[in-house]
Amino acid sequence: MKKNIVLKKKLTQIWFKDLQKKLCGEFQRLEIEYSKKIKRKPNFFRTKHWKRSKKGGGGTYSIIRNGAFFDSVGVNFSMVSGRFEKKFRSQILGAIKNPNYWASGISVVAHFRNPKIPSLHFNTRFITTSKNWFGGGMDATPAIKDDSEKKMFHKKIKFVCDKYNKTYYPKYKEWCDNYFYLPHRKETRGIGGIFFDYKKDNWEKDFNFVKDIGLCFFDCAKSMIKEKMYTKWSQKEKEIQLYKRGRYIEFNLLYDKGTKFGLSTGGNVEAILMSLPPKAKWK
Amino acid sequence: MKKNIVLKKKLTQIWFKDLQKKLCGEFQRLEIEYSKKIKRKPNFFRTKHWKRSKKGGGGTYSIIRNGAFFDSVGVNFSMVSGRFEKKFRSQILGAIKNPNYWASGISVVAHFRNPKIPSLHFNTRFITTSKNWFGGGMDATPAIKDDSEKKMFHKKIKFVCDKYNKTYYPKYKEWCDNYFYLPHRKETRGIGGIFFDYKKDNWEKDFNFVKDIGLCFFDCAKSMIKEKMYTKWSQKEKEIQLYKRGRYIEFNLLYDKGTKFGLSTGGNVEAILMSLPPKAKWK
Repeated sequence: MKKNIVLKKKLTQIWFKDLQKKLCGEFQRLEIEYSKKIKRKPNFFRTKHWKRSKKGGGGTYSIIRNGAFFDSVGVNFSMVSGRFEKKFRSQILGAIKNPNYWASGISVVAHFRNPKIPSLHFNTRFITTSKNWFGGGMDATPAIKDDSEKKMFHKKIKFVCDKYNKTYYPKYKEWCDNYFYLPHRKETRGIGGIFFDYKKDNWEKDFNFVKDIGLCFFDCAKSMIKEKMYTKWSQKEKEIQLYKRGRYIEFNLLYDKGTKFGLSTGGNVEAILMSLPPKAKWK
Repeated sequence: MKKNIVLKKKLTQIWFKDLQKKLCGEFQRLEIEYSKKIKRKPNFFRTKHWKRSKKGGGGTYSIIRNGAFFDSVGVNFSMVSGRFEKKFRSQILGAIKNPNYWASGISVVAHFRNPKIPSLHFNTRFITTSKNWFGGGMDATPAIKDDSEKKMFHKKIKFVCDKYNKTYYPKYKEWCDNYFYLPHRKETRGIGGIFFDYKKDNWEKDFNFVKDIGLCFFDCAKSMIKEKMYTKWSQKEKEIQLYKRGRYIEFNLLYDKGTKFGLSTGGNVEAILMSLPPKAKWK
């Protein structure tokens, strides 16, 4: 069934917003549950709406910083539209033919107080120019190695991918490894996951895949958290985490295309830099 | 007097090395003096020599991290040579005519434990392609505002610049303000200073200027330190400093051309990233 673009925009937007609500609800619940256990006050999501001054659109981002359970977690919904500047057009699919764009998406970054729980990143988006396509992915960055956790994470992702196409998982896993790589350190950011872009095989199927990947992230996050939520950690493990976060920051500021694109096109700074942990160290 | 290029390379290199020794000596003395006062063990400069594997040259960098007085200080000497890749040539003066280059320089970044003392940055370099020129500058990034300190810093720099040419200071000050600017934050990195590049008016005069700027940095650093070395600070002031350092890191990883150039051309990672403070925070 070929849906018209207006409907596609509406449906994707509704999904991204719904998922934002679902994730915030669960993260808030975890923050409160944990804070009770350690007898500390929980922090609550601060939600901000922002609008792009001259250009179209804006978004809603919800952030907890310096919580009892989360060092930081941000869940960001955005819907922007406008016209690509000439210098960007050649870099973007379908933008030479039609420089007007519309894009909506959700992105999530969580950094946990407990250094045994990996930092988690997830995002999915729908973009339209003269073409329209989905992109997104998720990856995990543990400070402390855990092979069985890595196995579980990839198994869950592979399971969802395989439902659609057996080629997805190996292809998107490799894309992720290549993307989240720090050439100057000769190391990957974390244990990988998946990354995909320009996905426009079959809209219905692609949208279902994007929704399933969102739910898969929800499931992976819950599993990883549940496993380690109440484990204790040492000062040394916390230190290791802070250095690992230094590398996370290096990646995001030196190489991440989304960060660069957002900052150079006048996106909301707080929403873009919510990916940075509240504290990091360098040796 | 027109000196041949071999001699120019030799003289500049000797100067950068001498200045490195002079600065390290003074910084080490301060670290020891302060550590005695607070009855803590001082840290000592770790000096590393590095060579570029396939390309020519290398350098010597000396670093103190997590000292009694310095959170970190790095004094980096380098001498590199090679051939610019095609894609870089159009960006570099004289490199289309002759893609072979030789470059030597000194760079210094100091972050102090005491949040009342500004972070200090200085570098000077001599580069040859088919042309040859000097570049460099210095700037200060205080976490806590101090107008009289700012005035003193700029006055000292202006004094040296004015000895050579009355146009230098206003021109190089503006260049510095434009360079050390974070567009996404709409703020400058610090209180400025000077920045200059492609300096090739008169080699003798330019080299003297570069030497004088090096000595001026030495003088400014000593004055700023002496003024505040034994002042006390609050936890709140330390926090302000850590957030300011977050911005410092944002600038260096997102915008600094030297950092990008160094990392993308296979420079020594530790020497390049010595500019990052050992710890930073984000709100």
